[in-house]
Amino acid sequence: MVNAVEKQSPHRVVIVGGGFGGLYAAKSLGSVPVEVTLIDKRNFHLFQPLLYQVATGTLSPADISSPLRAVLSRNKNTKVLMGEVVDIDPEQRKVTLQNQDLHYDSLIVATGVKHSYFGKDEWSEFAPGLKTVEDALEMRRRIFVAFEAAEKETDPEKRRAWLTFVIVGGGPTGVELAGAIAELAYSTLKKDFRNIDTAEAKILLLEGMDRLLPPYATELSTKATTSLQQLGVTVQTKTLVTNIADDIVTMKQGDEVTQIAAKTILWAAGVKASAMGEILAKRTGAQIDRAGRVIVEPDLSIPDHPNIFVVGDLANFSHQNSKPLPGVAPVAMQEGQYVAALIKQRLQAKTLPPFNYFDRGSLAVIGRNAAVVDFGFVKFSGFLAWLTWVFVHIYFLIEFDNKLVVLLQWGWNYWTRKRGARLITGEESLLTVGVDNQGDFYTPTNSNSAVKV
Amino acid sequence: MVNAVEKQSPHRVVIVGGGFGGLYAAKSLGSVPVEVTLIDKRNFHLFQPLLYQVATGTLSPADISSPLRAVLSRNKNTKVLMGEVVDIDPEQRKVTLQNQDLHYDSLIVATGVKHSYFGKDEWSEFAPGLKTVEDALEMRRRIFVAFEAAEKETDPEKRRAWLTFVIVGGGPTGVELAGAIAELAYSTLKKDFRNIDTAEAKILLLEGMDRLLPPYATELSTKATTSLQQLGVTVQTKTLVTNIADDIVTMKQGDEVTQIAAKTILWAAGVKASAMGEILAKRTGAQIDRAGRVIVEPDLSIPDHPNIFVVGDLANFSHQNSKPLPGVAPVAMQEGQYVAALIKQRLQAKTLPPFNYFDRGSLAVIGRNAAVVDFGFVKFSGFLAWLTWVFVHIYFLIEFDNKLVVLLQWGWNYWTRKRGARLITGEESLLTVGVDNQGDFYTPTNSNSAVKV
Repeated sequence: MVNAVEKQSPHRVVIVGGGFGGLYAAKSLGSVPVEVTLIDKRNFHLFQPLLYQVATGTLSPADISSPLRAVLSRNKNTKVLMGEVVDIDPEQRKVTLQNQDLHYDSLIVATGVKHSYFGKDEWSEFAPGLKTVEDALEMRRRIFVAFEAAEKETDPEKRRAWLTFVIVGGGPTGVELAGAIAELAYSTLKKDFRNIDTAEAKILLLEGMDRLLPPYATELSTKATTSLQQLGVTVQTKTLVTNIADDIVTMKQGDEVTQIAAKTILWAAGVKASAMGEILAKRTGAQIDRAGRVIVEPDLSIPDHPNIFVVGDLANFSHQNSKPLPGVAPVAMQEGQYVAALIKQRLQAKTLPPFNYFDRGSLAVIGRNAAVVDFGFVKFSGFLAWLTWVFVHIYFLIEFDNKLVVLLQWGWNYWTRKRGARLITGEESLLTVGVDNQGDFYTPTNSNSAVKV
Repeated sequence: MVNAVEKQSPHRVVIVGGGFGGLYAAKSLGSVPVEVTLIDKRNFHLFQPLLYQVATGTLSPADISSPLRAVLSRNKNTKVLMGEVVDIDPEQRKVTLQNQDLHYDSLIVATGVKHSYFGKDEWSEFAPGLKTVEDALEMRRRIFVAFEAAEKETDPEKRRAWLTFVIVGGGPTGVELAGAIAELAYSTLKKDFRNIDTAEAKILLLEGMDRLLPPYATELSTKATTSLQQLGVTVQTKTLVTNIADDIVTMKQGDEVTQIAAKTILWAAGVKASAMGEILAKRTGAQIDRAGRVIVEPDLSIPDHPNIFVVGDLANFSHQNSKPLPGVAPVAMQEGQYVAALIKQRLQAKTLPPFNYFDRGSLAVIGRNAAVVDFGFVKFSGFLAWLTWVFVHIYFLIEFDNKLVVLLQWGWNYWTRKRGARLITGEESLLTVGVDNQGDFYTPTNSNSAVKV
């Protein structure tokens, strides 16, 4: 007992969130003489860049998930805790979970963002977003139910609405979703139906800015548009969605307002910070931006709280460029690694120069053979870009969990054009599709709607 | 138009249910000049013998599922319909779906069984069964939540309840579940936790008869018991479960009544016929047995209705032995094929001798290296039996969908002892584990319970 008291207790690092930022911080702290606790609501890390492949039936959730405990099992200084942080107390240096408190010496907050409907939360019912495994399975359910319902529908107008897919938002997720659904409709499912021609499906990608993939170079936006059009996607830029209701999307291009009846509307447009942003602001006086992200110092800490760090999508880091760093996995990884290194230096009473993001480039996949790559010094697209995309993603997946199975699954899907993960599952899947008052995703209030089935 | 009327319309076969019986009937009818409609509530065929591997985190649902449309896409005479049959009319020769009627000339009913709590439906809340993908994901959630909650629990008694797994029923499913959970606790998860030693988990397999795997030869029951005991499972035969409530299992062995506190109780004990059994009985006067199965003629038809067939688990076929054929996949496959062949013969005004099941043997897997095989002429167990089990299952999986990925996944799991599909998902997964009033699977009514957490 006396020894226990005399022995200096190790520096306690609490990490909230097991996404790219939190997990890379934890991994980097594995060899540092600190005591790490990683808290996440889920028991797995999700490789979010491939979530659209779950939503479109190529991969299973487990293919892109790694159990946090397994990833960190060799880090003997690290505990994983499944739980949710509901408050923090910077004076007492503790975080509050639902049934316990946890003290920290350094705190890393990496709870990311969720999708945002820009104040129109009522749209979420009609246009699900893509952030969690459950989101992806719900998208998958809706996409495949749409084809099943179209097959049963005899009214041509209603059938057209079942075969219309609107994707709102032309960033990487929107582009990848549109490309994957186009392949599904125009290739994979072609021979599987008897009453409908899946090639009649209409896939509409809407983007508010004047081009797809706004953060990329202009020439790649053009390439992406061309590739999608070749796949059969209708790309509409400078188009703002003004309403989503009752399976009707209302949009505005310039002064022209149009409506389209669509049973499947997918949201890939906006994000806002997770609740931890507001909690941090309230408890530490940290500034948050319009999207709720926490504005951080050059070393990713919060002003006046040098031992509280924010990394990943939740952080607004604006010290490198005029605008904040983008909310992508490489930024989160490097931020997590930086904070881990900084904590290590501080233990030796040293410090580090400010964080500096090294941009290795951007990637987006468009279809079976097409992608766009922007490495800064070189930009390319097409099959070579697709191969690059495959290997970069496999490389990072393998780092976690040796997910060679994904590579094999892709190889198999590539050659056969099959999709194994086309299951319609979940509570609602048990309802028969295309029956009055049976589906949960058309509004039962307006039965005069042309697309009500 | 005149031609269309003059042309004789083809013989219409309606198949209800896309399990082994219905799917094999449909496959066999692909080259027969009939018009086939396969109706299923789900859009996929489920390879049920491997469902326990989803429940225990080795495989993903998509790994053991094949989209019905994809499996049957080459059968140009076959339509797949996602829907539920709610009634049949033998006079009009039609089945009623929720929003349409469908006429048949021959009807094949293959809707199988669901699990049964022998009239104690209130047990289902505490002890989920294993028939659907959703069931498997719910079992998976409970199993992995139990370890997470134990890790957080400080009260030793409550922790013990979280680490106690009771499997009710010593048939193939119960044996396979017990073996898989033992491997999980005693090997896979060993290094992943910090506060608990997963090797302290207690896995209890309860069977009412005097031995495990009652339908198998006695020597294999003994082998199975030994193998499970070596894995660390406590096997208790001649034990009847008399109550399941409030995370307490009450059981009776002879005159001795005992109770055990367990947070995870899995039901592998009984089945009863699906609703179509009763509908058939009501509409055709067919006899049903105690489990609700339809008693069929030697050609698998219903008395006085030679064009209505029942195949698979829903059928009680007692013409070969004194007791009905067991509810296993090979029986269903052969029955489906027989009925398809009979329909083909009848088109040519011929018939077939009565159905005769050819028993190729029985298999059950116990753990990473152990299984029991009973081919009738030869019985063996251990590693060779395990290899046999692997190849028999892969062979049948491949027949559907070239699921080579499953083989690779197994190879990977085998060598690394890893389990990739350990995700805790679903609505309830978002609740933090081990918190008062947060879990959905302990009764909140009796807060005095020793195991209430």
